[in-house]
Amino acid sequence: MSLKVVIYGGCGALGRNIVSHFKSNNHHVTSIDLMSNDAADQNVLIKNLNSWQDQHAEVVDGLGSLLGKQKVDAIFCVAGGWAGGNAASQNYVKNCDMMWKQSVWSSTIAGNLASKFLKQGGLLTLTGAAPALEGTSGMIGYGLAKAAVHQLCKSLSDSSSGLPVNSSVLCIAPVTLDTPMNRKNMPNADFSSWTPLEYISETFLVWAKGEKRPASGSLLKVETASGATTATPV
Amino acid sequence: MSLKVVIYGGCGALGRNIVSHFKSNNHHVTSIDLMSNDAADQNVLIKNLNSWQDQHAEVVDGLGSLLGKQKVDAIFCVAGGWAGGNAASQNYVKNCDMMWKQSVWSSTIAGNLASKFLKQGGLLTLTGAAPALEGTSGMIGYGLAKAAVHQLCKSLSDSSSGLPVNSSVLCIAPVTLDTPMNRKNMPNADFSSWTPLEYISETFLVWAKGEKRPASGSLLKVETASGATTATPV
Repeated sequence: MSLKVVIYGGCGALGRNIVSHFKSNNHHVTSIDLMSNDAADQNVLIKNLNSWQDQHAEVVDGLGSLLGKQKVDAIFCVAGGWAGGNAASQNYVKNCDMMWKQSVWSSTIAGNLASKFLKQGGLLTLTGAAPALEGTSGMIGYGLAKAAVHQLCKSLSDSSSGLPVNSSVLCIAPVTLDTPMNRKNMPNADFSSWTPLEYISETFLVWAKGEKRPASGSLLKVETASGATTATPV
Repeated sequence: MSLKVVIYGGCGALGRNIVSHFKSNNHHVTSIDLMSNDAADQNVLIKNLNSWQDQHAEVVDGLGSLLGKQKVDAIFCVAGGWAGGNAASQNYVKNCDMMWKQSVWSSTIAGNLASKFLKQGGLLTLTGAAPALEGTSGMIGYGLAKAAVHQLCKSLSDSSSGLPVNSSVLCIAPVTLDTPMNRKNMPNADFSSWTPLEYISETFLVWAKGEKRPASGSLLKVETASGATTATPV
């Protein structure tokens, strides 16, 4: 059975991996991002970066015009980014603002997309971060945005959240993903403690098929040690 | 000894109570809000509601011009608001945006004010919400913004947050405050289970004097039952 899925952030390192993995398994993929992912079947382009409401309208309209009355099996929100800085940093508020837009705007909009376009029993995933389970003084904007996403997952998993009946909402909280950017920025790290993108993509595929889904609302800490990855509810 | 304090949100119900309480105890109060609080010694007016960075610059400049090189004993961020709605609500993103600006912009800017204007050993308080410790499907934007504030408190309490040495950062998480607006919106509620604003104001005064401060980074659930209020670290 071919699944129909939406990847919000389909041009990031994780997003591209997910798009490719679903395509190589013959599923139908729509990417939402600032640019087109040519590996996807269709793309929604985001142009509005200045207003949360305008970006929301743009994405709803764009996806709606592609899907019509069709519903999708899963929506994966993997949009996000990273920026550091403490409360005294020159770029503190600028980076808080950027992290908010990249992680919180995308995740909340994905929640509304799920209310409109997800099948009953469908799957929505959000992307948090394990470090945000504690304080993150050296990356304050990143941590607070990811903490907001963690709590959003709990809200959206409630039966009165506005999402379709029996849908599952899951939030991954990786420690470190093995991306080209992370390898570039931390060239001397132990890469065997980083989570391969393929692990996330394959896990999402299994969940999208309705298999091995953790309880809706779960926040899953994704850790890798000596090349072995686990996803543990916290 | 007269204390010098800053109240971010000095024109809200809680903010006005704090301003009056500190003034009646002969302390020096600066209010930051959209309008002047005439009970305060001085006011910083916020005009920029459209840009996080511009609002930050406006508040830093305004407070800096009033304080000069003086440092303050405490900064209380009690700005915030409330809006409901689930992920399918018409005003979902609009309300998420409003909640983010009211709670997260103010709290993060207060963090930077603390890095610039707080004395060593001074106090910064933030305002969270007990419901945001769990999912909040009927008020999604409110819950995620308050969850971000809870995590911000942990970040700012770290010794490498950029705040002055030995400062304390505390976040209150009330269940329900006994405000005129809440009485108007919930006229049939049991008011004896709501927290009097005077409790918060007096607690802040005690903490500002350096007395009975919980460990920095604490999130304090503020609950009232039969007219008796407790603040318990969670």
